[in-house]
Amino acid sequence: MHRPVVVPPLRTTLPARYYTDADHFRREVDHFFFTKWICAGRADQIPGAGDYFLREVLGESLIVVRNAADSVSAMFNVCRHRGTRICEASCGTFQGSIQCSYHAWTYDLNGRLIGAPHMDDIAGFDKRNFPLKPVGCEVWDGHIFINVASPAAPLHAQLGPVMDRFRPWRMEELRLVHRTVYDVKANWKLIVQNYNECLHCPVLHPLLNQMHHYLGASNAPSERTYCGGTMGFKEGVETLSRDGKLRRKYLPGLGPEEKALVSYFSIYPNLLLTLHPDYMVTVTLWPKAPDRTELICEWHFHPEEIARPGFEFQDAIDFWEVTNREDWHVSELSQAGISSRAYEPGPYSSREQLLWDFDQVVRQELDERT
Amino acid sequence: MHRPVVVPPLRTTLPARYYTDADHFRREVDHFFFTKWICAGRADQIPGAGDYFLREVLGESLIVVRNAADSVSAMFNVCRHRGTRICEASCGTFQGSIQCSYHAWTYDLNGRLIGAPHMDDIAGFDKRNFPLKPVGCEVWDGHIFINVASPAAPLHAQLGPVMDRFRPWRMEELRLVHRTVYDVKANWKLIVQNYNECLHCPVLHPLLNQMHHYLGASNAPSERTYCGGTMGFKEGVETLSRDGKLRRKYLPGLGPEEKALVSYFSIYPNLLLTLHPDYMVTVTLWPKAPDRTELICEWHFHPEEIARPGFEFQDAIDFWEVTNREDWHVSELSQAGISSRAYEPGPYSSREQLLWDFDQVVRQELDERT
Amino acid sequence: MHRPVVVPPLRTTLPARYYTDADHFRREVDHFFFTKWICAGRADQIPGAGDYFLREVLGESLIVVRNAADSVSAMFNVCRHRGTRICEASCGTFQGSIQCSYHAWTYDLNGRLIGAPHMDDIAGFDKRNFPLKPVGCEVWDGHIFINVASPAAPLHAQLGPVMDRFRPWRMEELRLVHRTVYDVKANWKLIVQNYNECLHCPVLHPLLNQMHHYLGASNAPSERTYCGGTMGFKEGVETLSRDGKLRRKYLPGLGPEEKALVSYFSIYPNLLLTLHPDYMVTVTLWPKAPDRTELICEWHFHPEEIARPGFEFQDAIDFWEVTNREDWHVSELSQAGISSRAYEPGPYSSREQLLWDFDQVVRQELDERT
Repeated sequence: MHRPVVVPPLRTTLPARYYTDADHFRREVDHFFFTKWICAGRADQIPGAGDYFLREVLGESLIVVRNAADSVSAMFNVCRHRGTRICEASCGTFQGSIQCSYHAWTYDLNGRLIGAPHMDDIAGFDKRNFPLKPVGCEVWDGHIFINVASPAAPLHAQLGPVMDRFRPWRMEELRLVHRTVYDVKANWKLIVQNYNECLHCPVLHPLLNQMHHYLGASNAPSERTYCGGTMGFKEGVETLSRDGKLRRKYLPGLGPEEKALVSYFSIYPNLLLTLHPDYMVTVTLWPKAPDRTELICEWHFHPEEIARPGFEFQDAIDFWEVTNREDWHVSELSQAGISSRAYEPGPYSSREQLLWDFDQVVRQELDERT
Repeated sequence: MHRPVVVPPLRTTLPARYYTDADHFRREVDHFFFTKWICAGRADQIPGAGDYFLREVLGESLIVVRNAADSVSAMFNVCRHRGTRICEASCGTFQGSIQCSYHAWTYDLNGRLIGAPHMDDIAGFDKRNFPLKPVGCEVWDGHIFINVASPAAPLHAQLGPVMDRFRPWRMEELRLVHRTVYDVKANWKLIVQNYNECLHCPVLHPLLNQMHHYLGASNAPSERTYCGGTMGFKEGVETLSRDGKLRRKYLPGLGPEEKALVSYFSIYPNLLLTLHPDYMVTVTLWPKAPDRTELICEWHFHPEEIARPGFEFQDAIDFWEVTNREDWHVSELSQAGISSRAYEPGPYSSREQLLWDFDQVVRQELDERT
Repeated sequence: MHRPVVVPPLRTTLPARYYTDADHFRREVDHFFFTKWICAGRADQIPGAGDYFLREVLGESLIVVRNAADSVSAMFNVCRHRGTRICEASCGTFQGSIQCSYHAWTYDLNGRLIGAPHMDDIAGFDKRNFPLKPVGCEVWDGHIFINVASPAAPLHAQLGPVMDRFRPWRMEELRLVHRTVYDVKANWKLIVQNYNECLHCPVLHPLLNQMHHYLGASNAPSERTYCGGTMGFKEGVETLSRDGKLRRKYLPGLGPEEKALVSYFSIYPNLLLTLHPDYMVTVTLWPKAPDRTELICEWHFHPEEIARPGFEFQDAIDFWEVTNREDWHVSELSQAGISSRAYEPGPYSSREQLLWDFDQVVRQELDERT
């Protein structure tokens, strides 16, 4: 009996509205950035009690502060009196309390209101009812995650098994050495998609393509909250640097296998985590508009290396500056083309499996079929 | 019998939409700026017949012109032929008539069409039907008020008793000496509210706080169209200047009581009138967007002082430049915080009565309950 | 018997929404710029096979390319793989094919997909289904017209008899010598209207008014797709230049009648064609927003003149730079005035017949009564 050949439908990219529509964008970022845990930065940026940094999430200014030696918390940067933004400097140190510069309402480092001039004679006023509004805050291996949802499920309920995956790299020990902020004219998802395939490496990345074989990725099974994989080095390459040479010791927890590869993981929605044998790069994504995303790229090294005389790191900065700019530029070209009335979803190759997986997560999270 | 303690509800600030919502903004400015009398400037700016200045109200360009020795009128800056904006220079002098530069349609200083080339052969065309569209215009003690509504009730029907309150200052005699224009990223009502309380003075205004006791205001009963009050000086202070010293004679009409205080009145919607023993400051508010207002601040002095050799005024400019910039900056911080999803109306203290009064006027005028 | 005098209603300008409303703008440009033939440029700009230029139409990037010695084609600048904008440089030469810089999808000069790496193993994928999306393209006397509609009627169905009108000028022989791009804060139709009457010449154009008598136009009957007419010179004037003097030979095909006049034709929607005895000026209109239009003005001369030692052309550039800037500025004033709430349609004179004709075409095309 003859059995017909069944041709499955082509797996195609998302419709244009996912990248260009203002209403879709609001719905998407409301879901991914205001109900999920997002990566806000690193705990080593605020080592002492009172140290803080501000993080802006789509116009919301949030304070991330170390309120005790072993504890970090986060709260909205909005005074409960007349709504004034309390804190202006993007980072700094509070001297024991947080005071609004307008009428001197004062909060402790946990956000509790402890001073409100001329409110004592107001019947029904109770300081306990007017704390700075809290934001969920947890630390995973040195990465500070925050969650605006109230109440928020614990971080491990979102991240799951990926939380244990990178133990050998001892990420919590690493220290920030360099930061570059990029303003990219592309939707945040195009940055995630660009990160998750190396099919473009031979055409776009002459330097990176000397380091990995572009078809050499070994992908982990995609999960609802992340995707990623590893890539080994080409013969003679030791790490990702200008020339592939290693200028620092291997991170102390790595075995032979981990020393021979780079891990590339997208922790949805906003952390791109790249682990090398001798350093870590994090990129956090901050959507500003359907067609605009701010990217904060940070390079982290081991403190023993940083302390070593003659510590070198510029090779790692240079490598990723070159590669990043190639990636962001082509992502901007994608944004421009997808905005055309001529755009229609195009077919993925078999080398773009992780992108398809990510697209389906976006669809499912937003409960969209098309 | 036990009588329960009844706690009145807290008096709180307005909901966020009053400061951030584009539709609310349009409705609010349509009501306050396009159906009410607003202060456009000062009569001494256009002393001679034909002298004019332009005033822009939310994109509308209006011509305010002296059409006779004792008469000022206002009209839309829109030619009745093809709609061209006739007048470009922000102030100047018309030579007897107003001519459009496109096809030479010509109007007299009252806006009547007096010339329209090649229209004579058009059946049904009558010059009398095509005047520049008129705008209500009245002068109160030297302040020019305009009203786009047609027909407009007389100015005194809006201003009421406040029109007589400042007779001793003889405001009509004062002359403009200095102007500063500020572009402030805050809703216009935040400027009014900031003006109407001194609870913030100790924290925000080190200089001003040396001049007044911040709890020393004596407020007039609030009315539907204005609110305000007076503040006496601290010991040894004579006027608001860099050092509190008087460098000009007292205004000639003042008695001992008026020499010892400053009057602060908000004439809704757009005039903040500050009367000192020896000079006047006016701030007019020009909303540009929910979160943006242009402020025109002007310093006015008595002509006899201006004419005096060695006339000094920089002390008064400096005092208010410092204080203004502190006020505008904190108003911008309020705008930023109120725009947060964390903002909710906060409780007023007993020192913020005039703000509550103003808020209720806004609500009532817009017929809003919440 | 008494017969009443019947006064016809005044013929007035269009309502404000035609110039200011964002929805109307979208509907209007969708109709005129995305279903009609529009002028994209000149064939002499891309003389060799592979030569191309990009043309942006309201955010759409289109590639216009010479795909063979005697053939020009146009296509959307959007890769069919992941939607990337393929081509960035505004003009240049393709080396036989068009390749996307992201994943190397490659197209021939007709837009056919000829290379798609790692797609061979995708069941159901067929290169023939993924050409660059085509755009209609025809050349009239050297002017390249494009049409995004699919399928598009032939160009002659739109342009009609105007295609033969300018044969004596042999426009296809002329070559581009100078280009100025203007960014004008006015609706595109105000530019068309300004072009179609000389009633404004005595007031606005001191220089141009020395060349023509402003009432001396001889208009052709207006058609659905164009309007225009001719103007003879004043005594002693030979062409439109700084001083009215001719510095080049007459265009070779002209008879005595054509040597004594200038033709001014608006080829709807976007070509203003001005033919002088010795050169051609084209202005193409590129709407950007209801109140903003980019204008590309080009000066074209005969190649024999261009090749002549001592070839002069600056007089023609100067003449039109002066006149253009006067026209664009007053068009911006019209835009500003029409945006006022005081604007209402004003009466046309008998010298503005072509504007009324154009307005009725706009109304009819959009099926609007008011």
